[in-house]
Amino acid sequence: MNSKESKDMIFGTRAVIESIQAGKTLDKLLIQRNLQSDLSKELLAVCKEKNVHYSKVPVETLNRITRKNHQGVVGFISSVHYATLENIVAGTYEKGAIPLLLILDRITDVRNFGAIARSAECAGVHGIVIPTLGSAAVNSDAMKTSAGALNYIPICREDNLKTSIKYLQESGIQVVACTEKTEELLYGADFSQPTAIVLGSEEDGVSPEYLKMVDAKVAIPMNGQIGSLNVSVSAGIAVYEVIRQRG
Amino acid sequence: MNSKESKDMIFGTRAVIESIQAGKTLDKLLIQRNLQSDLSKELLAVCKEKNVHYSKVPVETLNRITRKNHQGVVGFISSVHYATLENIVAGTYEKGAIPLLLILDRITDVRNFGAIARSAECAGVHGIVIPTLGSAAVNSDAMKTSAGALNYIPICREDNLKTSIKYLQESGIQVVACTEKTEELLYGADFSQPTAIVLGSEEDGVSPEYLKMVDAKVAIPMNGQIGSLNVSVSAGIAVYEVIRQRG
Repeated sequence: MNSKESKDMIFGTRAVIESIQAGKTLDKLLIQRNLQSDLSKELLAVCKEKNVHYSKVPVETLNRITRKNHQGVVGFISSVHYATLENIVAGTYEKGAIPLLLILDRITDVRNFGAIARSAECAGVHGIVIPTLGSAAVNSDAMKTSAGALNYIPICREDNLKTSIKYLQESGIQVVACTEKTEELLYGADFSQPTAIVLGSEEDGVSPEYLKMVDAKVAIPMNGQIGSLNVSVSAGIAVYEVIRQRG
Repeated sequence: MNSKESKDMIFGTRAVIESIQAGKTLDKLLIQRNLQSDLSKELLAVCKEKNVHYSKVPVETLNRITRKNHQGVVGFISSVHYATLENIVAGTYEKGAIPLLLILDRITDVRNFGAIARSAECAGVHGIVIPTLGSAAVNSDAMKTSAGALNYIPICREDNLKTSIKYLQESGIQVVACTEKTEELLYGADFSQPTAIVLGSEEDGVSPEYLKMVDAKVAIPMNGQIGSLNVSVSAGIAVYEVIRQRG
């Protein structure tokens, strides 16, 4: 157990229930087998309600993790900074900044996700929107590939990206898809205004349902034979074009 | 043995000697143990002269690779397109193109090298210069990460990058280092002229000895906390800024 993990560790049934109800995300939750107290039943009910996954383990496992009075419950709070889309957008406007967001459509590769987070954090992107289902796991491999960026950049998990795109558009943010299916180049877009960039999977790009909704479609020029950039490189090129234009 | 490898396989002592003397690069050369013919001695002498590495293997290994009359010698020709710096520069000018090259200073990670090759090929970079020693292996992992780009983009292995930088400058090509050690931004450089961009290792950037020689130093702006892009993303951002400026 290194100090980094200890710092993010919570123990005791009540403490874990409160963390979950406060909206904290747990990377891992370990519950002692055959725990029978009323409070532990409340914990299981909260886990069910909030869709929190847990593992049942022998008490010895918990005793190895901490010598403190864990009451059969040990959780690890995710160091990833989750946020709602509303908070990201409002927070950015309040800071007087021009919003710049990334929307990742079916980026399932953990390393690509981490690499995108790294580039986005370096550029100063205000948040990354991913779907709750069908996205890469935001796990320790993603954290490692992100070079720690996932400790800083807000991540927003949305049940329905269509709703998110509509919400952004209604909030005065243009939604621009980075796609090969257009003649317009990245460099022709006006990124001085609030912008969210949609990136799709390497296999088949941005989904047609989102392409129909976006305000603009832009392509990165392809001058070679292979004609396919890695999605994390595409993300870097796109967000840095925004940074260049905003000077 | 898959069909891709079979295609690049050569066998027979004379055929391998001729391939080496024709300047082909062998990914692998297998020579039967205790081979005693005069021709095999000639092969070993050619290998020594041209600095070609080989492995001595039992005849059974060769028999498993091919049923043809291999005479104790089987080689695999590299599908990477090696070229001299002179040929790349001359070829680019002859095509009427404005040269754009990458120089990689101690990029030792095979996946980073492959990823850089991929972005470079997509952008239309004319060649990648790497040092003969202290660079990533140009192997099948690099080929895979490059998404096949290494089949197309010329790679130039140079014994001394100082000599290469001087040669490029004398050929009318500005050499620009991408480095954090400057206040000048990437976007302020004039990439309409012939350009070679130097990228350094992720650990400590471009070597001071090359920083002293280059015509310009430029930085990619860092707006976040972590302040460190992946080198293949930096390469993508830099070469695409050239593409943008050249329109």
